[in-house]
Amino acid sequence: MDITKFAIPEIIFGRGSMNHAGQCALRLGAKKVFLVSDAGIEHAGWVQRLMDILEKEGIRWIYYPGVTSNPRDFQVEQGAEFYRKNGADVIIAIGGGSALDTAKGIAIIASNGGKIRDYEGANRVHRPLPPMVLITTTAGSGSDISQFCIITDVERGVKMSIITRTLVPNISIVDPLILRTKSKTLIIQSAVDALAHAIESYVSTIASPFTEMHSLKAIDLIIRYLPHAVATQSLDSLEQLSIASVSASMAFSNASLGVEHAIAHSLGGHFDMAHGVIHPILLTGVMRYNIDSAREKLGDIGRVIINKDLGSAEKNALAGIEKLEQFFSSLDVSLRLRDEISEDKKHFLKPICKLAVNDACNLTNPRPASWQELLKICEEVW
Amino acid sequence: MDITKFAIPEIIFGRGSMNHAGQCALRLGAKKVFLVSDAGIEHAGWVQRLMDILEKEGIRWIYYPGVTSNPRDFQVEQGAEFYRKNGADVIIAIGGGSALDTAKGIAIIASNGGKIRDYEGANRVHRPLPPMVLITTTAGSGSDISQFCIITDVERGVKMSIITRTLVPNISIVDPLILRTKSKTLIIQSAVDALAHAIESYVSTIASPFTEMHSLKAIDLIIRYLPHAVATQSLDSLEQLSIASVSASMAFSNASLGVEHAIAHSLGGHFDMAHGVIHPILLTGVMRYNIDSAREKLGDIGRVIINKDLGSAEKNALAGIEKLEQFFSSLDVSLRLRDEISEDKKHFLKPICKLAVNDACNLTNPRPASWQELLKICEEVW
Repeated sequence: MDITKFAIPEIIFGRGSMNHAGQCALRLGAKKVFLVSDAGIEHAGWVQRLMDILEKEGIRWIYYPGVTSNPRDFQVEQGAEFYRKNGADVIIAIGGGSALDTAKGIAIIASNGGKIRDYEGANRVHRPLPPMVLITTTAGSGSDISQFCIITDVERGVKMSIITRTLVPNISIVDPLILRTKSKTLIIQSAVDALAHAIESYVSTIASPFTEMHSLKAIDLIIRYLPHAVATQSLDSLEQLSIASVSASMAFSNASLGVEHAIAHSLGGHFDMAHGVIHPILLTGVMRYNIDSAREKLGDIGRVIINKDLGSAEKNALAGIEKLEQFFSSLDVSLRLRDEISEDKKHFLKPICKLAVNDACNLTNPRPASWQELLKICEEVW
Repeated sequence: MDITKFAIPEIIFGRGSMNHAGQCALRLGAKKVFLVSDAGIEHAGWVQRLMDILEKEGIRWIYYPGVTSNPRDFQVEQGAEFYRKNGADVIIAIGGGSALDTAKGIAIIASNGGKIRDYEGANRVHRPLPPMVLITTTAGSGSDISQFCIITDVERGVKMSIITRTLVPNISIVDPLILRTKSKTLIIQSAVDALAHAIESYVSTIASPFTEMHSLKAIDLIIRYLPHAVATQSLDSLEQLSIASVSASMAFSNASLGVEHAIAHSLGGHFDMAHGVIHPILLTGVMRYNIDSAREKLGDIGRVIINKDLGSAEKNALAGIEKLEQFFSSLDVSLRLRDEISEDKKHFLKPICKLAVNDACNLTNPRPASWQELLKICEEVW
């Protein structure tokens, strides 16, 4: 086996684990915390709750609320300026992927200087980042676990993947109680994001025995618990989706992803679409594209999805893809690109695929893909 | 689910991963490395190899060779004195559990002062330790991954368990190439140690979804690959045992262990016996002791060991225990305590069990145990 690396943060998981945030900050030497979140999380009361937890421990904080969904380069750079001006020493972010990625982007610029686009790609951040405690409010993005940070380059209209071990936070807090304030739509989008992470990381060319079992576990839990979580929003099923998301994140952070995420980053950067909206449209198309290069592994995935063994990898793989298509149909999500993008903008797919082919996620797809092949996948799901 | 914590080091795994040691030390800010190992590893050439790797990166080092098997309290305290005198800043240890636990013990005293027995038990180390890179030369102890450190208190004749998240090293390097210089006996003892970690952590009262799958994976790999590794010492099977050991270590470090390890610590402390010698004697007896309190989980373990499902947890559990007894019989190991301890010393079992009942591992056993019950287990396997 080639040399493989596996790095994850310390994880504090469970109902009420958010209460540990203050002690975590103290353990990391916090005197003044830089708190990052967004209006939605504020509105749900979680930011105030976190401030109370910090104050109880006698920790000062400064709050940076400038997070929007699909965070942009200039926002991150403004945030870093704000960080520097206020002399903070530990970053705590609470939110979905956007808030956490904003915090990571701020951490990069605050300690490494320059512009965020200087760090696009793999392993381009050289100086250590401020200590980070990330508290996820979704069960999907995995930003609280991963070495990924996705920031939109406004000028090029592309979501940049910044990937480096340094971006693994010190501590990830996963508190399923927070999920109770989420809409059904967000629960679905987050779970589908975690599912795409699990599937793409499992077939990745750099998957390892340390990532593979996490991928399969996540797939199993999402297929089993998402319908129930959507129907009932029960805490037990939300907790299972949280476990799935942590597992999927441990996997993709260390095994990376594939073509589906490469396209999703470019599509999302251009049309401001959330990952969770794109995956049900693209994922099974990409699985079919990969089948000749990853038959055994897609067979393993199929076996988990259909929960039986049809006797051959090919049969399991195809049955899994079909069941997954039915699974997406049963959710209230778009299944075609045309449901999300108007006909008069279809011509953007070509430049989008030309950008996607250079995304770092493309490097680890089991079947190499040219931009023409990416475009063909997009046209098939138009 | 209760709040659960999961902390592991960054892991660099694979053939030749030892070559990364210098870069790891630099990343942790090393100017002068404190190198810990023992005569056996030196003799096999690995210490010189490591010195060469550090020198290639321009890193100075000071070598502390004072490691013996089952490290004693005074040795650790001497090592800490040597560390302080030499102004080192990063600890790199290469060896089996003894060398790595010595390094951890030195790290505790060097930064926290006092005597090593001051830290016995859970969470008693308060100040941060020097950065540590641990390179394991066995596939078993898991000290390179875990938050455990086992040091013998000479006066009381007991192996103390020191357990704290701070003991998780920064980086664990697992290079299966190193295993090629190991004897068959050591391969068996190490694998059996990992197997005991996997089984006890799986039935632990604080096992979590993040530890359970690692436990089962490790059990599966050890049952499948140990016989082949012993027969052929092929690198492929040694690599699988390394993966098993890493998995078992991630599990037990976060889920802790049980009665079997509690007894093994006290027995080992008194008679200077290696864990790997004790487990084949005690493990299945402890599994039988636990069966009424952990039927489902021992059933899961049984299903993995026998690689089929007999239809009930009870049947799977019992068949698994029987198969495990056959498995141990097929290895060249002692199966009875009387094979290791002479009759005239049998009376020490009583004070040993009275010590064992206070071991931290006893707290997470699925079935509570008094010292009398521990003694009964020991007598049954006499």
